[in-house]
Amino acid sequence: MIVDDGLELLTEDQARGLLAMGEVGRIGITIGALPAIFPVNYRLIDGSIVFRTAPGSKMSAAAEGAVVAFEVDDYHLADRSGWSVLAIGRAEVIHDLAMTSKVLDARLEPLADGSRTAIVRIEPTFISGRRIVHEQPPFRT
Amino acid sequence: MIVDDGLELLTEDQARGLLAMGEVGRIGITIGALPAIFPVNYRLIDGSIVFRTAPGSKMSAAAEGAVVAFEVDDYHLADRSGWSVLAIGRAEVIHDLAMTSKVLDARLEPLADGSRTAIVRIEPTFISGRRIVHEQPPFRT
Repeated sequence: MIVDDGLELLTEDQARGLLAMGEVGRIGITIGALPAIFPVNYRLIDGSIVFRTAPGSKMSAAAEGAVVAFEVDDYHLADRSGWSVLAIGRAEVIHDLAMTSKVLDARLEPLADGSRTAIVRIEPTFISGRRIVHEQPPFRT
Repeated sequence: MIVDDGLELLTEDQARGLLAMGEVGRIGITIGALPAIFPVNYRLIDGSIVFRTAPGSKMSAAAEGAVVAFEVDDYHLADRSGWSVLAIGRAEVIHDLAMTSKVLDARLEPLADGSRTAIVRIEPTFISGRRIVHEQPPFRT
């Protein structure tokens, strides 16, 4: 266990496990030279982050071929606990019937209504994670 | 109410209101030419996003002077509801006793242990928000 300033660095396996369990993550992209972060409903399929978006959307245009950041976390303020996982990789819009079938099998349905038929895949080349650890239980009043 | 593909675009006032109520957000920065997203415990003080980090950390170095994205969201998978707010602005490390005092007044304590005495401020020049709307209530089983 490596602890750096109150954060335990997770192993890649631990980080990948948390990524596999998540359902909502955030993608960091660049739109018109400005940075942006948007939440997406995703699944980890064959080791890749996969989500749906609208064909021809700003999102799919920005993601296509770009190296993007993807983050998942869970925090509980009550006991000051939490973890986060960061994945970095190239995003691509998938036109592959096999992947479409896997997306349907994974029941990957966008939360919002609308036509989100484009499939974006991020193959992570770097995954890291960190978890809050407290040396002693936080003081409670 | 403007609805775009299942998402209602919030007014800037609505988005700022949600930003003011949040406690954990995510900052998008660039470290060593790679994009990264990290969660931070923050407060909205005098209209600016303020959080604490360790002096001399990668985070404070990356944030100093950079135009960054900051995101807050809340999603509920059970009823497919949720919203997100995106703020974009220049980040700066603050060396200002008045701000230090406001940060203490706002009880802005990092969730993790460790020496996070550097204060980073993001003055948003752009704020947008969106909320999932369903044309009809989702089907419930």
